[in-house]
Amino acid sequence: MSKKYAIGVDFGTGSGRAVLVDVADGSIVAMAVYAYSNGVIDELLPGTDIRLEPDWALQDPNDYIETFKLTVPTVLKESGVNPADVIGVGIDFTACTMLPTKANGTPLCFLPEWRENPHAWIKLWKHHAAQPEANKLNDTAREMGEGWLNRYGGKISSEWFFPKVWQILDEAPEIYAAADRFIEAADWVIWQLTGVETRNNCTAGYKGIWSKQDGFPSKDFLKALDLRLENVVDEKMSRDIKFLGDKAGELTEEAAAWTGLKSGTAVAVANVDAHVSVPAATVTEAGRMVIIMGTSNCHMVLGKEEHIVPGMCGYVEDGIIPGFFGYEAGQSCVGDHFAWFTENCVPASYEKMAAERGISIHELLEEKAAAQKVGEHGLLALDWWNGNRSVLVDVDLTGLFIGQTLLTKPEDIYRALIEATAYGTRMIVETFAENGVPVDEIVATGGLPDRNKLLMQIYADVTGREVKIAAATQTPALGSAMFGAVAAGKAAGGYDTIQEASAAMSRLRDEKYIPIPENTAAYDKLYTEYVTLHDYFGRGANDVMKRLKKIKAEVRKG
Amino acid sequence: MSKKYAIGVDFGTGSGRAVLVDVADGSIVAMAVYAYSNGVIDELLPGTDIRLEPDWALQDPNDYIETFKLTVPTVLKESGVNPADVIGVGIDFTACTMLPTKANGTPLCFLPEWRENPHAWIKLWKHHAAQPEANKLNDTAREMGEGWLNRYGGKISSEWFFPKVWQILDEAPEIYAAADRFIEAADWVIWQLTGVETRNNCTAGYKGIWSKQDGFPSKDFLKALDLRLENVVDEKMSRDIKFLGDKAGELTEEAAAWTGLKSGTAVAVANVDAHVSVPAATVTEAGRMVIIMGTSNCHMVLGKEEHIVPGMCGYVEDGIIPGFFGYEAGQSCVGDHFAWFTENCVPASYEKMAAERGISIHELLEEKAAAQKVGEHGLLALDWWNGNRSVLVDVDLTGLFIGQTLLTKPEDIYRALIEATAYGTRMIVETFAENGVPVDEIVATGGLPDRNKLLMQIYADVTGREVKIAAATQTPALGSAMFGAVAAGKAAGGYDTIQEASAAMSRLRDEKYIPIPENTAAYDKLYTEYVTLHDYFGRGANDVMKRLKKIKAEVRKG
Repeated sequence: MSKKYAIGVDFGTGSGRAVLVDVADGSIVAMAVYAYSNGVIDELLPGTDIRLEPDWALQDPNDYIETFKLTVPTVLKESGVNPADVIGVGIDFTACTMLPTKANGTPLCFLPEWRENPHAWIKLWKHHAAQPEANKLNDTAREMGEGWLNRYGGKISSEWFFPKVWQILDEAPEIYAAADRFIEAADWVIWQLTGVETRNNCTAGYKGIWSKQDGFPSKDFLKALDLRLENVVDEKMSRDIKFLGDKAGELTEEAAAWTGLKSGTAVAVANVDAHVSVPAATVTEAGRMVIIMGTSNCHMVLGKEEHIVPGMCGYVEDGIIPGFFGYEAGQSCVGDHFAWFTENCVPASYEKMAAERGISIHELLEEKAAAQKVGEHGLLALDWWNGNRSVLVDVDLTGLFIGQTLLTKPEDIYRALIEATAYGTRMIVETFAENGVPVDEIVATGGLPDRNKLLMQIYADVTGREVKIAAATQTPALGSAMFGAVAAGKAAGGYDTIQEASAAMSRLRDEKYIPIPENTAAYDKLYTEYVTLHDYFGRGANDVMKRLKKIKAEVRKG
Repeated sequence: MSKKYAIGVDFGTGSGRAVLVDVADGSIVAMAVYAYSNGVIDELLPGTDIRLEPDWALQDPNDYIETFKLTVPTVLKESGVNPADVIGVGIDFTACTMLPTKANGTPLCFLPEWRENPHAWIKLWKHHAAQPEANKLNDTAREMGEGWLNRYGGKISSEWFFPKVWQILDEAPEIYAAADRFIEAADWVIWQLTGVETRNNCTAGYKGIWSKQDGFPSKDFLKALDLRLENVVDEKMSRDIKFLGDKAGELTEEAAAWTGLKSGTAVAVANVDAHVSVPAATVTEAGRMVIIMGTSNCHMVLGKEEHIVPGMCGYVEDGIIPGFFGYEAGQSCVGDHFAWFTENCVPASYEKMAAERGISIHELLEEKAAAQKVGEHGLLALDWWNGNRSVLVDVDLTGLFIGQTLLTKPEDIYRALIEATAYGTRMIVETFAENGVPVDEIVATGGLPDRNKLLMQIYADVTGREVKIAAATQTPALGSAMFGAVAAGKAAGGYDTIQEASAAMSRLRDEKYIPIPENTAAYDKLYTEYVTLHDYFGRGANDVMKRLKKIKAEVRKG
């Protein structure tokens, strides 16, 4: 039997990336990237003079189809693999990224009559203009004592599915009326590949307030939001939810023509970029937390039992790996801190020093910061430049730095910022552990682990846990390919379960970061100080951050 | 009668500066500066390989004599003034800057047998190595319930006279034994000019724990510190204290030869640089605070009555202007904040922008910060990078910044730092006002008022008081010349009181900064937040700053 392959396509915020993977061992044979031609639409609606409001962020569904047309043929060609040996396709997506379509799946924004209405386009995950709807939804849920609120740390984000649908209804009832379907872009892409409308339990669970036991919010609740929303699920969505690991369908002739693959190739149900990374990072069991470390941190851990953990982003039964509750938490700002710092706070003398040595400013700062002992800089920060997601769930919190003297150097501030994000992760880890979801080790993936060894060691030292690193550099795309292999099944040369696929196709690097006991002991003291400040500024004792933010907003409004 | 002149000499930390002043209107006719050849001695003892301990700072008395020899002849020559028309000389000094001498005034460090002993040299005001002695002195004073402690905000600084004397006794008893006199450098300089040993009530009062009513600390107290100190005042100091405005004596033949002045010229008793600036800034009455704004801020205000004001640096009856209690407070770090910020935190892109426009980085930041409305940046800082002098009297406090977001810009941080120092000044102003020492307006002098109009307006807005500016750019030297004219007296063409001299010889600039009511109202809200953080971190609710500093010190010791 010839070697078998699977294709995974990772739809990111600015580009789509396809990998062609050897099913036997998960090695990536070829990779291709397509930068979306319309990218993130946040100023002008394409082809018009229509200016978008602040907080808007749209996308063009055509960019996703183009991704298939341009990347899959490329990986086939580069690898020389016979399309007949590609047994399955999987995809992952940002979420909640959603759109209104006609009954046949045609996006409303493809239709001339709606093309100039921004609400007809795709609302990207970071479209934040549905905050009024999110606020009203949260208030109503609290008033009505909706049990599902606890599954999401007590608060639904403006980024999620129902606030976005409701914003369309509020601001463009004509679009709401014209839409036969509201659907996650992840599921819409699968629909385009297979001709079958499916909805996956991952986006439904984490972004659509759905659970295996209780389904979607009740009609009474939806009606309490707006009379016109009472039947939105039955009229414009679906209660038929597919599970991760299921096969959604098979490639249509049309999709086969776009991609150069064989029609009939198995296609997995859609997945989310963060969640699909978990099995690609070798994790299919409880106790091992995966952290995707990049501009922000996303923490995922599996549990055999259901627990309410305060301040998490959400948990979904079978939401990451079948048979487990998938728990998710997050930090809103990690790599973004360091980018902000190097852009705004690093003096010319340091830029010069780095240039003379032919290294990046991050490398210079890391080198200087790494020469310090724990506590040597005398600083402490709260990592809230972009608010706090877990465990405080409060977008109105802001940053704090304490301990500066006239001898404080840029590398001191840089190291303190790294440590602050590590304390934030420890707060999440300990909150999970204290609430029945143990975390015994950490597997890191994403962009940061490759770029900053000091940061990785600090995370190990601060959390007191070993930090390992997923071997693949493209964990989401690899995870999608793994689900493609599962959709194909063992009989076709793939796998019957994601656990089997993970065991065969994912691995860790040899390098790992082991806590240094002396550092961990020193960080224990500093973490105690962090917790005191965290609680003082984050839990209502002194809401100065919110008051400053409110004053700022009022002044800017004029 | 020909025009009359007076000479003022200001002995700073790095240089001595002489001005020749028209007694009629205070105009500066000529000025000359001498940079001390041995400057601040903090590494090697001059002419030796002897390395000084950290925190040491010495000076060479010969540099002061050289100042007279080099600057006074220069101003005479440049102005073309006849030495016979110079009616008086005054000087001001840093304090407490002190030295051990023989009975005839010869500094011990001039004698070959002591020249290689660091304790034989002048201890400069910022010599901080007597901290152990200061701590023991404060503890003992508290235990014995010494009433004078309240006059100094509850704490004597390691910079002051008795800790420095005691350090000599502790570490170099042979120097203590060889010293016939311990004396302020200010008074020593007058001794060299006049041949008469005098001691002024300003340094005695502010730095020597002396008061008009109670004199020096009791023998019982000094004995409690160290048996050998019991009689230090009678044996090696003097209880004969002269008052500001008194004549100390007349120029000797020798001093006349150094300076080119006539022997017999009147010489005023010594003064302190900050305090002598008050009448030179037009202030000889209660209610008008003088702030010397530079690397740090020194606040001085006169009061008719005696009040205990918490956290001030000290108050002395007749200590600034005869007939008034002279109250002093301070902020440890003002211009130093901005220097730290521009050196460590301003990005290369801003340096480039400033260079392209041919302006300094401070000017660029000021321009950008000035374009903002109050509260627009959303930040708040505690101005404690160098500890807090008034009103908390705590060197172990450190800096704090709160409110940062990913959109925070360098100019936001810069403006917030300026505001933090203004809030610190408001805290001092209000503490005075609440304790019976009213402050109706502010007169600024020093280096900052000329360099930063935004800062001046912010001080007016934050304090809600008009801020005026002393016209003279060399207020200490002018003030010294004014006291020189008073030492000469009206009969000789001078004045009989410093009030008369101030009225004739000092003036304000036309420009002044008037509080903008809208800004003051906005700052009232922000100041409330400042006070909450000030008290939380500064008054014991959360001593995290001290714990971080302690950890840092322990780590650095290893």
